[in-house]
Amino acid sequence: MASDIRLYVDQPLGAGSTVPLSREQAHYLFGVMRLGVGAGLRLFNGRDGEWVAEVAEAGKRGGVLAVSEQTAPLRPPPDLWLMFAPIKKARTDFIVEKAVEMGAARIVPVQTDFTNSERVRTDRLQIHAIEAAEQCGATVVPEVAELARLSTLLDRWPDRRLMFCDEGLAGTPPALPDAPGPWAILIGPEGGFSDAERTRLQGMEGAHPVALGPRILRADTAAVAALTLWQAALGDWR
Amino acid sequence: MASDIRLYVDQPLGAGSTVPLSREQAHYLFGVMRLGVGAGLRLFNGRDGEWVAEVAEAGKRGGVLAVSEQTAPLRPPPDLWLMFAPIKKARTDFIVEKAVEMGAARIVPVQTDFTNSERVRTDRLQIHAIEAAEQCGATVVPEVAELARLSTLLDRWPDRRLMFCDEGLAGTPPALPDAPGPWAILIGPEGGFSDAERTRLQGMEGAHPVALGPRILRADTAAVAALTLWQAALGDWR
Repeated sequence: MASDIRLYVDQPLGAGSTVPLSREQAHYLFGVMRLGVGAGLRLFNGRDGEWVAEVAEAGKRGGVLAVSEQTAPLRPPPDLWLMFAPIKKARTDFIVEKAVEMGAARIVPVQTDFTNSERVRTDRLQIHAIEAAEQCGATVVPEVAELARLSTLLDRWPDRRLMFCDEGLAGTPPALPDAPGPWAILIGPEGGFSDAERTRLQGMEGAHPVALGPRILRADTAAVAALTLWQAALGDWR
Repeated sequence: MASDIRLYVDQPLGAGSTVPLSREQAHYLFGVMRLGVGAGLRLFNGRDGEWVAEVAEAGKRGGVLAVSEQTAPLRPPPDLWLMFAPIKKARTDFIVEKAVEMGAARIVPVQTDFTNSERVRTDRLQIHAIEAAEQCGATVVPEVAELARLSTLLDRWPDRRLMFCDEGLAGTPPALPDAPGPWAILIGPEGGFSDAERTRLQGMEGAHPVALGPRILRADTAAVAALTLWQAALGDWR
C-alpha cells in the first residue's frame, strides 16, 4: 500500500537496490508514521530522481527499504540562489521552507549593514530544507550556505545576474531582463539596505533592482514574491 | 520625535482633529511602545489616508492624539479577493498577514469538499489583518469575511473573474488574461479540489485555472505566489 510519505536518503537508488535505515529514520517511519512491512513510500537522494520503495524489514533501531521503480526523473531547480538577511528564527525557518518550495537551488543567509543577525544554525536550516523538499515533491535538496557578510560575497561575486529587491523603488513595475543563465535573488533586510550597499549594488554589472509593489513586505513574503516573479519569467514555472 | 509606529483608529482624521484612545490603545502606545507626550506616530482609518499625530495626553487608561498633517492619500488595494481553505491556525494567520501585505481587498475563508476546517475565528483574523496593515504601510484594512462553503459562494457568484490555482495543472505556464475589473483568487486546499469542484470551476465563465510551478506549494506559499502573479500582471505592482 503506497503512502504519501517521501523520504530523503543518502544511498544510491536504483531498481532492486536496498536502503538500510538509521535509527532516526526507523523511528520516523515506524514509530511516528506507523508504517509496517510491505508499506510503500517514495525516496529521493538528490541524484537519482524519485523511486518507489517498500518496507522490507522494520525494527525499533533500524530497518530496510527495498527500492522498485522510478516515479520521477531528477528535476534540479534552475541555477538560482536566494540570498536573505536572517533576523528572527521563525521567519528564517519560513524563508528556507519557501525557498525550497519555490525552487531555489541554493539558500544563502547574508549579514548586511543593518542586520545584526543572531548566529545562524546552518545544520538546523539544512534539515528544514530537507523536510520542505520531502513535502513539496522536489527531487533535489538545495544547499544552505554558511552565513556570510554581503560585502564579502560581493567582493568575490561570480558571473551571475543579481535581482535585488529594494523597497526604495516602490512604485516601479517589477521587470526582469529576458536573460537566462545563473541568477541570484537578494531580499532586502527588514531595516533596508544601507546607502553604501545600495550604491554598490546599483553599480554592479548584471544587477537588476526590482520593486515588489507599493506596500512594505516582510522578508518571508518578499522571498516568495521575488521567487515567483523570477520563476514565472525565467525559471521552471514557464 | 516621529516613531515608526502606525496605528489603525476608527475616528475621522483631519488637520486639527483629536483622537481619544481606548484603554488597549493607551496600553500599547504608552506601556508597550513607551511613547510619551509629544511623541509622533502615524494614523490611518481606512477612509482618510495616513496622518501624522502627536501624543497630547498619555495616561494608563487612555490618552489623546492630536492630528496634524496628511502623509499619504488613501490608497485602496485593487478590487481583489483572496479565497482560501483554512486548515491549521498558524498557517491561516500567515495567509491573512500575507494577503494584507500583498494587497488583497477582501479575505474570504472557504470550506471545500476536502477541508474540514476547525471553526474560524473571524474576529481574531480581523485583528491580524489590522496589525498587518499597520506594519506594511497600507491605508485600508481588508475585510475578513465569515467562513462559507465554496459551493455556496459559487452558487451566488457575482460578476468577478476567478483565478483558481490548481496543482492538477503543474507544468502549464501561469498566464492571466489582460482583463481589469474585479477578480478573486482561489487557493486550492492542501488536499486538492474534489473532482466535482474542479469540474464546476472549469465550467464557470470568467474562471481561469493557473498552475503555480512544478512543486507542491503549501497554502500560504501559494497565496503569496498567486497574489504576486496577479499584482504584477493586473494590480498595483504595475
